[in-house]
Amino acid sequence: MARGAVTLRVMTPSAATPAYRRLSVEERRSQLLDAALTLFAHRVPEDVSLDDVAEAAGVSRPLVYRYFPGGKQQLYEAALRTAADELRQCFDEPRDGALLPRLARALDRYLAFVDQHDAGFSALLQGGSVVETSRTTAIVDGVRRAAAEHILSHLGVADPGLRLRMTVRMWITAVEAASLIWLDEGKQPPVEELRDWLVEQFAAVLSVTANRDPQTAALVEALAGDV
Amino acid sequence: MARGAVTLRVMTPSAATPAYRRLSVEERRSQLLDAALTLFAHRVPEDVSLDDVAEAAGVSRPLVYRYFPGGKQQLYEAALRTAADELRQCFDEPRDGALLPRLARALDRYLAFVDQHDAGFSALLQGGSVVETSRTTAIVDGVRRAAAEHILSHLGVADPGLRLRMTVRMWITAVEAASLIWLDEGKQPPVEELRDWLVEQFAAVLSVTANRDPQTAALVEALAGDV
Repeated sequence: MARGAVTLRVMTPSAATPAYRRLSVEERRSQLLDAALTLFAHRVPEDVSLDDVAEAAGVSRPLVYRYFPGGKQQLYEAALRTAADELRQCFDEPRDGALLPRLARALDRYLAFVDQHDAGFSALLQGGSVVETSRTTAIVDGVRRAAAEHILSHLGVADPGLRLRMTVRMWITAVEAASLIWLDEGKQPPVEELRDWLVEQFAAVLSVTANRDPQTAALVEALAGDV
Repeated sequence: MARGAVTLRVMTPSAATPAYRRLSVEERRSQLLDAALTLFAHRVPEDVSLDDVAEAAGVSRPLVYRYFPGGKQQLYEAALRTAADELRQCFDEPRDGALLPRLARALDRYLAFVDQHDAGFSALLQGGSVVETSRTTAIVDGVRRAAAEHILSHLGVADPGLRLRMTVRMWITAVEAASLIWLDEGKQPPVEELRDWLVEQFAAVLSVTANRDPQTAALVEALAGDV
């Protein structure tokens, strides 16, 4: 897509008469994606039309098509990529202080993301949506891999073995499942309890693996001294 | 589909000349589904054609179409339903003896199923396949729900609360993740180790939840006396 400023007609809800606003291509694209993400948060992707996005963003339908000529599927994938980037940022945590509080802070950001994106988050992870394709699955898998890599790098293990990698990936899947159930259950238990509970589960499954795997045992011992 | 016997032409690999064998409609259907499941175990669904199924079953392509007029998608869904029924049977475990050995026996059957269905199992759970639809997702979700209900009924809790239900569902998701990684990693660690490890994780996450939930605490206490 060409970069540069374009002049586009904008209907703002506050103005009775059409207003003209100058947005760069990137700004406009990002405005449309924000509008789409907000809609996806409250409805399943199948129920969001390009008309809805145009209305929410206060622009014309042809404009939405100009930015997303591939229609709904392209818009959905672009919105998903934006959400995936945002989700990856949740994992950014300085390597300072004890490990479990770092994990708790990353979980706080992750759960705030889940809370904000709500139905869109469920639709995304539960799959089976009409807009599910191998590309959307690859985006979601990329986020899972990034989460696993972040955790392993915080654990400070240079060459994590199979049992440690499996433990981390199983816990990440359990966190995903917890997020979906949490949304289904009207965001119960309270988010702080959910966060602490997930951190405790991480410590517990790591300890179980430590009984079978010397690498994880050494790690758990190091973490025990890390308060 | 009408029940009854039909006479169909069968090419058997051992016979140089066509042989005629009498199979009932149900027997024939189940023969075709077995052939399909064997193919799905070694290739992703996208790479299995009706020709392949006809060849593997030693029958003509029109015959496969007669049983599955909806083509590949219908065959895949029928095979998936058969696999889902088989998977549910893995969970059947008498309510005798201590709980964790019961769980270990059910896991043995489940992991044997994963081992046998291999690539088909991964394709099914990883989604993103061209044949993924909301119907296939519903079949898989039905199996997950059945697994959770089985475990809760074995736990003997009449009215399981949110925290206990979440714990069970999170563990089931972690088991699924473990199965997929296990297949990816050339079926390592050895299946007996994986089974014991998963049982230990179940006990560990239940104990973590017990610290936050009186119902789970009472359950863990009861299980401790149940050797």
